[in-house]
Amino acid sequence: MKLHEQRCVACVEGTRAMPPEEARELLAEVPGWSISADGRWLVRRYSFMNFVEALAFVNKLGDVAEAEQHHPDLKLGWGYAEVLLQTHAAQGLTKNDFILAAKIAGL
Amino acid sequence: MKLHEQRCVACVEGTRAMPPEEARELLAEVPGWSISADGRWLVRRYSFMNFVEALAFVNKLGDVAEAEQHHPDLKLGWGYAEVLLQTHAAQGLTKNDFILAAKIAGL
Repeated sequence: MKLHEQRCVACVEGTRAMPPEEARELLAEVPGWSISADGRWLVRRYSFMNFVEALAFVNKLGDVAEAEQHHPDLKLGWGYAEVLLQTHAAQGLTKNDFILAAKIAGL
Repeated sequence: MKLHEQRCVACVEGTRAMPPEEARELLAEVPGWSISADGRWLVRRYSFMNFVEALAFVNKLGDVAEAEQHHPDLKLGWGYAEVLLQTHAAQGLTKNDFILAAKIAGL
């Protein structure tokens, strides 16, 4: 099943970040995203024509995040939104982050 | 007239940041806000119960920003929103930033 068709699963205590090589493999399935230098975040910057459009995107993204109960960290301003995904319980990346990235890419 | 009753004025080319001492004086009129160490940003972090409430706050703030045509940079995630104000044309603080801060504080 493709990433965007999957659902984020609830984190349990002790959820661990995936090994870097596994993250790199999944990265190939979410074009446009990159992994931060420390390996702990999946990141994408989007550009927009103004503040209103950037905020509209963040609201659509918020609906997806709520549906999955997996929430990004965001930077937002005039003409841009930057999405930072991490499984906070694992202090790193899990499959949930790639699933959410794939769903966001489809917005 | 109190800060929150004033309107942001359109920046003209060559708009300059205010002197630090003037910024410190105006800071006293916007409790809860602080000036960044480099003196270029007016900053406030808000806490919320969840992502939805943080996003709702950002949307209210977006309405004010649009009305004033002065837009913050924001960080947003589960349970928090951080507001960073700067007059980008001046690469520092002008009265507009304090006016917007006062209006945001009233949300």
